[in-house]
Amino acid sequence: MTRTRPHGAKRRSKKLGVWLIGARGGLATTVMTGTFAIARGLSTPIGLLTESELFAGFPLADFGDLVFGGHDIRETTAREAALEVGRDVHTVSTDLVKKLAPEYRKVDREVKVGTARNAGKAILSLADRSVKGDRRNLRSIIKTLRADLSDFRGRHKLDRVIVVNLSSTEAPVRLGRLHASRVALDKAIDGDNSRNMRPSLLYAYAAAAEGCPFIHFTPSNATLVPAIQEIFAETGTPFMGSDGKTGETLVKSALAPMFKYRNLHVLSWQGYNLLGDRDGAVLADADNKKSKVATKDSLLQSILGYPLQTHVAIDYVPSLGDLKTAWDHIHFEGFLNFKMHMQFTWHGCDSVLAAPLILDMVRLVDYAAQRGETGPMRHLACFFKRPVGLDVDDLHYQWHMLEAYARKERETLD
Amino acid sequence: MTRTRPHGAKRRSKKLGVWLIGARGGLATTVMTGTFAIARGLSTPIGLLTESELFAGFPLADFGDLVFGGHDIRETTAREAALEVGRDVHTVSTDLVKKLAPEYRKVDREVKVGTARNAGKAILSLADRSVKGDRRNLRSIIKTLRADLSDFRGRHKLDRVIVVNLSSTEAPVRLGRLHASRVALDKAIDGDNSRNMRPSLLYAYAAAAEGCPFIHFTPSNATLVPAIQEIFAETGTPFMGSDGKTGETLVKSALAPMFKYRNLHVLSWQGYNLLGDRDGAVLADADNKKSKVATKDSLLQSILGYPLQTHVAIDYVPSLGDLKTAWDHIHFEGFLNFKMHMQFTWHGCDSVLAAPLILDMVRLVDYAAQRGETGPMRHLACFFKRPVGLDVDDLHYQWHMLEAYARKERETLD
Amino acid sequence: MTRTRPHGAKRRSKKLGVWLIGARGGLATTVMTGTFAIARGLSTPIGLLTESELFAGFPLADFGDLVFGGHDIRETTAREAALEVGRDVHTVSTDLVKKLAPEYRKVDREVKVGTARNAGKAILSLADRSVKGDRRNLRSIIKTLRADLSDFRGRHKLDRVIVVNLSSTEAPVRLGRLHASRVALDKAIDGDNSRNMRPSLLYAYAAAAEGCPFIHFTPSNATLVPAIQEIFAETGTPFMGSDGKTGETLVKSALAPMFKYRNLHVLSWQGYNLLGDRDGAVLADADNKKSKVATKDSLLQSILGYPLQTHVAIDYVPSLGDLKTAWDHIHFEGFLNFKMHMQFTWHGCDSVLAAPLILDMVRLVDYAAQRGETGPMRHLACFFKRPVGLDVDDLHYQWHMLEAYARKERETLD
Amino acid sequence: MTRTRPHGAKRRSKKLGVWLIGARGGLATTVMTGTFAIARGLSTPIGLLTESELFAGFPLADFGDLVFGGHDIRETTAREAALEVGRDVHTVSTDLVKKLAPEYRKVDREVKVGTARNAGKAILSLADRSVKGDRRNLRSIIKTLRADLSDFRGRHKLDRVIVVNLSSTEAPVRLGRLHASRVALDKAIDGDNSRNMRPSLLYAYAAAAEGCPFIHFTPSNATLVPAIQEIFAETGTPFMGSDGKTGETLVKSALAPMFKYRNLHVLSWQGYNLLGDRDGAVLADADNKKSKVATKDSLLQSILGYPLQTHVAIDYVPSLGDLKTAWDHIHFEGFLNFKMHMQFTWHGCDSVLAAPLILDMVRLVDYAAQRGETGPMRHLACFFKRPVGLDVDDLHYQWHMLEAYARKERETLD
Repeated sequence: MTRTRPHGAKRRSKKLGVWLIGARGGLATTVMTGTFAIARGLSTPIGLLTESELFAGFPLADFGDLVFGGHDIRETTAREAALEVGRDVHTVSTDLVKKLAPEYRKVDREVKVGTARNAGKAILSLADRSVKGDRRNLRSIIKTLRADLSDFRGRHKLDRVIVVNLSSTEAPVRLGRLHASRVALDKAIDGDNSRNMRPSLLYAYAAAAEGCPFIHFTPSNATLVPAIQEIFAETGTPFMGSDGKTGETLVKSALAPMFKYRNLHVLSWQGYNLLGDRDGAVLADADNKKSKVATKDSLLQSILGYPLQTHVAIDYVPSLGDLKTAWDHIHFEGFLNFKMHMQFTWHGCDSVLAAPLILDMVRLVDYAAQRGETGPMRHLACFFKRPVGLDVDDLHYQWHMLEAYARKERETLD
Repeated sequence: MTRTRPHGAKRRSKKLGVWLIGARGGLATTVMTGTFAIARGLSTPIGLLTESELFAGFPLADFGDLVFGGHDIRETTAREAALEVGRDVHTVSTDLVKKLAPEYRKVDREVKVGTARNAGKAILSLADRSVKGDRRNLRSIIKTLRADLSDFRGRHKLDRVIVVNLSSTEAPVRLGRLHASRVALDKAIDGDNSRNMRPSLLYAYAAAAEGCPFIHFTPSNATLVPAIQEIFAETGTPFMGSDGKTGETLVKSALAPMFKYRNLHVLSWQGYNLLGDRDGAVLADADNKKSKVATKDSLLQSILGYPLQTHVAIDYVPSLGDLKTAWDHIHFEGFLNFKMHMQFTWHGCDSVLAAPLILDMVRLVDYAAQRGETGPMRHLACFFKRPVGLDVDDLHYQWHMLEAYARKERETLD
Repeated sequence: MTRTRPHGAKRRSKKLGVWLIGARGGLATTVMTGTFAIARGLSTPIGLLTESELFAGFPLADFGDLVFGGHDIRETTAREAALEVGRDVHTVSTDLVKKLAPEYRKVDREVKVGTARNAGKAILSLADRSVKGDRRNLRSIIKTLRADLSDFRGRHKLDRVIVVNLSSTEAPVRLGRLHASRVALDKAIDGDNSRNMRPSLLYAYAAAAEGCPFIHFTPSNATLVPAIQEIFAETGTPFMGSDGKTGETLVKSALAPMFKYRNLHVLSWQGYNLLGDRDGAVLADADNKKSKVATKDSLLQSILGYPLQTHVAIDYVPSLGDLKTAWDHIHFEGFLNFKMHMQFTWHGCDSVLAAPLILDMVRLVDYAAQRGETGPMRHLACFFKRPVGLDVDDLHYQWHMLEAYARKERETLD
Repeated sequence: MTRTRPHGAKRRSKKLGVWLIGARGGLATTVMTGTFAIARGLSTPIGLLTESELFAGFPLADFGDLVFGGHDIRETTAREAALEVGRDVHTVSTDLVKKLAPEYRKVDREVKVGTARNAGKAILSLADRSVKGDRRNLRSIIKTLRADLSDFRGRHKLDRVIVVNLSSTEAPVRLGRLHASRVALDKAIDGDNSRNMRPSLLYAYAAAAEGCPFIHFTPSNATLVPAIQEIFAETGTPFMGSDGKTGETLVKSALAPMFKYRNLHVLSWQGYNLLGDRDGAVLADADNKKSKVATKDSLLQSILGYPLQTHVAIDYVPSLGDLKTAWDHIHFEGFLNFKMHMQFTWHGCDSVLAAPLILDMVRLVDYAAQRGETGPMRHLACFFKRPVGLDVDDLHYQWHMLEAYARKERETLD
């Protein structure tokens, strides 16, 4: 984090733009529905850290001041999407959807067609026919994405638009020279060579070039690559990622340090995830699953400091809807080489767990941008499975970093 | 922590005395067996934090230099006790017991008859007939306990004897004026009025008066009372307690902060403990259970910062032997007031989990005493359910305190 | 089961009365809501055995032909009760409640004030003030209850009214001479001596005297006593009980036989129930809990054929609403005396699990009555924790009894 | 089951031969160790159904009269194998192994080198070098296997030798014409064409030809094929299989009927198995896993009567040793289309669970052979995941078949 402008030199504009990649998905729908409901007093901001004591007194964007737009590759309406979210797991009631009709209609005007260029077959299967048939070259795709952002900012007279990537997990690509520098990347784009590019990279490129702070909430590996970070640096724009830490991994990163504190030796830590939502359907594809599992498997060794057997099996179970069930079995050895075990089961709703994190980060990245901070927002590490620019996977150290940040900032506020 | 002597002014004597109250119990037996096995190279010091990198290079007592003695109210031999520990859950093999025969014989010479004065019916039922019939007055009991300690120190030419209370959980007493000052306590002792005194208080008194550092590993509430702390202060002796944090509570204090980090509202946290050992038999008594449950129930509110429904049910299940199984169900509310839950099951062996903590603390309190530290050893808070002199129940803050201590001390060592 | 009238001698009337004791409770509300929804094609009859192949072709009452009435001690409306059921756990949606308004209004006209005479303090605390202040003597209470039934039957021209006891679990009473014969019981009633009587006995008395088949769905022990069975015999009326088997006990009775089939020795079977509904609130009272726990604890020994340690702990956890969570831990010994264990967690909604059983039994008891069967309906044993007139607790034997009954009856139908 | 000789026409010989394929494995070792321990009074016959009341009074082989031999592809000693079994999970203590030295020595004289012809790479990797290099043709292998059996029978003057296949799960082969008749099979054997043959088929061929009753305890699919059953019919020899039902599948087949009894609709039933033994290592191979998973996945649809999402994921976790942990998550729908779930965790030791089944079947098949029964022993269905000649997967119907058999036989015994 580097600060390039003096504190308080500029007040944030009243309205804050939030541009969601994957705007028709369950998570984006939950983010928007929750924001509208809170703004109208129909729900409470539970699950939001920025509403806890830690950030009391911070000049954060009001819920009513957020203006939503976004990209997607499926055509539907916000209202339809909200009804679908509610149908399965009752996170959103029909009543609430009815009441929020005006807000949903506004959103519909701001959702533009995105890109599925080289997204892989699992994601393509979800896309509308027109998206599948899209024949534009890479440069022209990026140009349109940028125009969408800049048009959104202009029409709403927004001081700032924060882009959040909530699209489905993409199959990993092999990172290489192409991703190493802006020059190389631009050359590949000009050659329309998309072999090692995924849509998320194009969205991130557009955000960086437009100076829009960017939050990469998925594990897709071809996004916050050095070439893209270079553009963010050029435009002095903050960003953070990757892969929101919401469920089983959150518990793992909270629990694993305990074994370290007691010098208990973890012999094996096996997890089994049952997912029923669209994300699960995409992960059912072996290629896309790879991105996810790789992130999940590396964490424990990093926290514990030694190699151990660990694996996360993932199955797609449509009957669960947006609920996610994870079972973890931890086998460990203690004094006198005695073996013991513990297990946990997590029953959560992924979108309900993730949505407040996105709002927290939108507000905190906006705050940081307002303060002139640029580069990776390391103090937000606790929200991610793979925090950019940080080797620490222990949730508690990450938390203490955020606490320290909040404490320091508060001093400047008084 | 206050330091009264200059660093390094005095090197610790080669032999270190460890005096275990409850020396015939499963936990004390595990502590001694593990120490002997490690000293002889028959086991590895897994589960010991003082053998982790954190304390690398510290001048800590060697396993081979520990000399054990203790008090108990049941007569048996160390070998018998070890066979009993091994019978149920195989923490200690018959082979190992056979090999350690010489060590066990030495211990047997150092275990003295303790006191069960006003211990309550559950504990008394475990005591030998001679102990039950003991008619000595309080002052004379304390005198004998002190003589046992001083005799042990003298015969083995020990520079220091650390007393560890591992006796069964006592029924709580109402704390009052009697416990508030040494003067009041001495008066009650002289009047032989034991109504609000439990054996643990008498042991602590003896240790304090003899200048023996004291580790209070049980939840018994009438032990580290102000009057006793006063005596420790007078003799410049370090101490710490109460109630070792080994199993379900350890997990709770590791996990609960995670809900705070996400501002998830915990609605209820219910626990169910199945215990099969002698400790479980004592806790089956409603009075003794009170001490345990009170400690367990207060922790969550302290970490989360708001009142919540929480209770720990405890049942005695002899078939489990020394294994302990705990199930916890956590019901919580997130964004859009959606309710979710998680559960965990812990299958551990209490004595295997507790024994290394005791050895860690014996070594670290010895280190502290050697450095001239006195008073409550707050940096050891992470080992206790109710750390004396500290309001912090979050395991991770406690851990960071220990890390900070280790880091600071290391600087003085180099 | 004895048959007193020739098969098919009489066809059931088109409309069938269903009188629910506890008509304002969550379970009764779910029974009625489900019936209305199915009758209107707004839901499917899932969970109903009488809709499975086993009873295909049986002349069972149609959902649209059920007419509901009942007694309660709290005043509210069916619509209010339905909204309350839906609020917590979404079993019933606001939409559905809106659509069923006409049906709920009809029910409201048929719910009469019941009795809370000697119901115990836990139940009394739920009762309306007028009910608490009720000073009528026992005989006059019974008279009114009977009049309510007969009036209901008359006004709707019902051939038959089936009474189902869904009231809260009552504290047990000591059974004695008073319950042993009708003569003794009548004498006590005439003396207005209610010391060993509970409301459920009065309801059962009224049903028996009116010739209304009776289903005792609660564990209350002072209900289907010999004196009451005598009256059912006099009026040639079928009945069955006690205590619907819906959740944890259902699983236990399905699973325990497996250990018998393998001659695995169950050492201990401990259960922990978390209940959040009104039933849980009543069970939080130690006296009322006794009835429940006694039923739950006796089952395993009966199935396994030997005594074992078993206990069911119950806690009231309001945050769970109508959801019930039960955790069971089973410790067992196998070949070479090796100890193993299994555990299960059950997350169910009690009223959703119980409601279809009630409809199944209403239809099957109606069928039996139509066929002239009288006495305890033993073939319905699989629906109960304590089937009257049967010593078999193994769910699978109970099921095979029901299958055999269905098979035999089918032959008479063709 | 057909009876070809009159009851009681012939008494069983005093000594009974038990020939174990996979005689060096953990399961065979547990079978033998348990038998020796029980015969010597060092353990009790817990877990054996033939020792329960159901078979009281049956003329079953005594434990002391069993003579063990077998085939294997790894060279070791029975004592070594027993120590290895005990090392991990303490099913067999070092003490016990010491005491049974004479018995183990006798076994070592009776274990012969088997065959790994076309066993697949996972199994071959476990075989001794000499076995891997074996170049004999199929006919000569069968000849040797037969000679081993007949030699064993002759030397010990055994009236009967029962062959039990306990070898590792083989990768499935496509069944075809080759397996359909003895003529076709013999032709393929003479042509030395092993492409669709596995070792288990060769062992079964040898047993059938020698008139040795055969118990197929593994899921390998190329074993009890029609051609082999033809040979068993020719020699009038009873047999049974396939795949012993010991752990997770046992629980599934006990529990699934419960959902049918309540017409609860199972939406998905997902299982996750963690295996740490040699069997797990073999199953880690994708090909071999197929056999296992296929058996496990088909069961639920068969019991419930409708298709449902179900899958069993299997991972090899060496730290668990011979312990097996399985977690199952069952998602189901009830009244008002409300979704609920249950989960169970099974912690068992596979060899401890399987060994008594094998002894039960050895005794019961011996009993049946003695009674002149031939063909598939359908009354033993409850011991298998895929009972030959029976479409019933419901454990309770299978049990009732065994009960009926025992009851009928008892009548002939009196």
